[in-house]
Amino acid sequence: MPPSLYRVTDFLSRARELDAADTLAPFRERFVIPDEDLVYLDGNSLGRLPVSTRERLHQAIDEWGGDLIRGWDRWITLSREVGDVLAGGVLDAAPGDVVLADSTSVNLYKLAAAACAARPARHVIVTDDDNFPSDRYIFQGLAQARGLELRVVKSDIDLGVSVEAVREALDEDVALVSLSHVAYRSGAVADMAAITAAAHEVGALTLWDLSHSAGAVRVPLRSARVDLAAGCTYKHLNAGPGAPAFLYVRADLRRELRQPIWGWFGQRAQFDMAAEYDPMDSIDRFQVGTPSVLGAYAALSGAKLTAEAGIGAIAEKGAALGAYAIEVSDAWLAPHGFTLASPRAGTRRGGHVTLHHTRAWQFSQALRAAGVVPDFRTPDRLRLGFGALYTRFVDVYAGLSRLRDIAEAGTHLEFPEQHARVT
Amino acid sequence: MPPSLYRVTDFLSRARELDAADTLAPFRERFVIPDEDLVYLDGNSLGRLPVSTRERLHQAIDEWGGDLIRGWDRWITLSREVGDVLAGGVLDAAPGDVVLADSTSVNLYKLAAAACAARPARHVIVTDDDNFPSDRYIFQGLAQARGLELRVVKSDIDLGVSVEAVREALDEDVALVSLSHVAYRSGAVADMAAITAAAHEVGALTLWDLSHSAGAVRVPLRSARVDLAAGCTYKHLNAGPGAPAFLYVRADLRRELRQPIWGWFGQRAQFDMAAEYDPMDSIDRFQVGTPSVLGAYAALSGAKLTAEAGIGAIAEKGAALGAYAIEVSDAWLAPHGFTLASPRAGTRRGGHVTLHHTRAWQFSQALRAAGVVPDFRTPDRLRLGFGALYTRFVDVYAGLSRLRDIAEAGTHLEFPEQHARVT
Repeated sequence: MPPSLYRVTDFLSRARELDAADTLAPFRERFVIPDEDLVYLDGNSLGRLPVSTRERLHQAIDEWGGDLIRGWDRWITLSREVGDVLAGGVLDAAPGDVVLADSTSVNLYKLAAAACAARPARHVIVTDDDNFPSDRYIFQGLAQARGLELRVVKSDIDLGVSVEAVREALDEDVALVSLSHVAYRSGAVADMAAITAAAHEVGALTLWDLSHSAGAVRVPLRSARVDLAAGCTYKHLNAGPGAPAFLYVRADLRRELRQPIWGWFGQRAQFDMAAEYDPMDSIDRFQVGTPSVLGAYAALSGAKLTAEAGIGAIAEKGAALGAYAIEVSDAWLAPHGFTLASPRAGTRRGGHVTLHHTRAWQFSQALRAAGVVPDFRTPDRLRLGFGALYTRFVDVYAGLSRLRDIAEAGTHLEFPEQHARVT
Repeated sequence: MPPSLYRVTDFLSRARELDAADTLAPFRERFVIPDEDLVYLDGNSLGRLPVSTRERLHQAIDEWGGDLIRGWDRWITLSREVGDVLAGGVLDAAPGDVVLADSTSVNLYKLAAAACAARPARHVIVTDDDNFPSDRYIFQGLAQARGLELRVVKSDIDLGVSVEAVREALDEDVALVSLSHVAYRSGAVADMAAITAAAHEVGALTLWDLSHSAGAVRVPLRSARVDLAAGCTYKHLNAGPGAPAFLYVRADLRRELRQPIWGWFGQRAQFDMAAEYDPMDSIDRFQVGTPSVLGAYAALSGAKLTAEAGIGAIAEKGAALGAYAIEVSDAWLAPHGFTLASPRAGTRRGGHVTLHHTRAWQFSQALRAAGVVPDFRTPDRLRLGFGALYTRFVDVYAGLSRLRDIAEAGTHLEFPEQHARVT
């Protein structure tokens, strides 16, 4: 038996063994998977459709058709219901700490503006240079409008932002530190507890973007004494394209903070239609306009599924999928010029593993043509996202073996170097 | 034949004749109507479910399940597609003038903030005291944050805001005039052209809330030279509970205006993930975060249906339904203490007619119990909303005859005076 074939068999057997031992394996049946041949490794961009969500959405559409305006008697509390499921089952938070609202970007704006307004004598927002673009744009806009300084910490593109780098940027003029818990490109996990503690030492507030961590890893909001957080539901929470985002505000801060977009869904007794804005004391004060009912049902259904599986089991499986991918990549892809662009340690990594290659964009197109959906992130990163509830070890095997085949045959060179509009 | 029975027959015959002559009557079949006995007179709060929307949503859910992230290759332009259908078929605007985004409240915030920033030497926002609460709250928040004066014009609760009242509030310090095109309580239509012209005379910009007018009456954005507008899609555009809102910015203003929430969907070549925010020149610069795909498909489907029927025919039928309702109400309900709380002239009224009664809340509960869904608006208004695409004259007849029966029997007195959370 030639060595390469031996290794193939070896990794495949390992994948099958790992799948057989996977306690989350039964959850794959809870998702709509119309094409079993497709290898989907982009659940960290858009999660799969849960069976329960498909059913719940069909039902919600017919509730609209039949109940009409009367449906709002129930729908009015949906954003809070989803928040409570997220708080208890996904984030380390208490009922009433979380609410579904708007998009992640709008929530970051509301919370960052509220935080800066609560620290009027301070003039600095700290973020890092590899934070997600929308986060950075939001802070740039706020800084320009309010005459604040946006202090940008240098982070390692593969290993994420370090506690030391953040600490060096902190002083008594910092109002807010805002970072992503899991870096969108590398999947690196920031040390939420240490960074939050460092921010608190200088009297600053923290705002964490949980878009890539909620539903993928443990998010220690309560134990880390996090002040504020926001995140999306369409990645690891499987709520569908453009589903509403969520936000978190620590209970003791809630009444002190006032967000700038004063809408009727934040108003006390909103249907009294009072002349003056008087926000609720609860987390509802961070709501603005009429929320999407379909979006809320999808988020509810997705959050319940994650809570049922348990975030501990999900995080463990995510780390194991990543470790397996790294091992296979080291053996098969490193010889073709791929290098790991994520932390190697499972505890420092979120739900995806990123590989660097100068021709990453061409490889990502070749993979799609070969029935594998990865994610490309500019300029030269291939992101392999794992949904612990539906991604099998054999999927990772299939994706990486096809990538190796492409690299060996050079078929990626047939694809354009020019990027598409959507990557 | 006793006189009252004669009159009953008379109004019913009239309703049947009007329905028989109604060129929009075939559109009723285009909606899902599971309960033919229900008399739904609240389409101005939440429009009915179109058959095409139900199908399109089912399809979109399965596209998510099957296409997964690849769906974004198409979804990325959806917000603009909906905008173009609204521009051409519903509003008097050009392709590229309108985009679907966020909620109405968030859009009002973005546009009002952008307008005030574009008139930095001016310090006043003008609105009216019966504008929708969320509009007023948004402006209160902006005024407080930016040290502006919110100048509140007195409007007539039944007849709406007059050109004269607005003109008296205008001077060279006014940055923005923002009003609702159709008043949420009375349905009164404001004189968009005259008020916009008056605002322009003093160098102010105008921002119109079209929530109650889009899909109900002609909205002369272009001919009135309106600067900015926003509105919702879940009322007369039938896009479902909490569907995304839209916004309009006049072409020549677009590059001058910069909205304050800098998100990645407003960014030029967003997937390049550039470090600095650099908004697109197009209407897309007013987008923020990832938009709801299901919401966009529902809005697209609803907007197409309205465009197909034609806003002229819709406005005419809406006015005729209102005229009929007023005639029946004058004859049957005035003796029981109901008075008209809307303009009498069809050209001055949007898609609903409002009746005043001190026991309006009890009547609205009694109507619901009798299979009629009206809308209650605090403190003492019964709103009867007509969806020209699905409301028949016989529905108006049925609703008002049951209201008369309730008033005659006094059954409304059996219902609580205390308001519910959602009205």
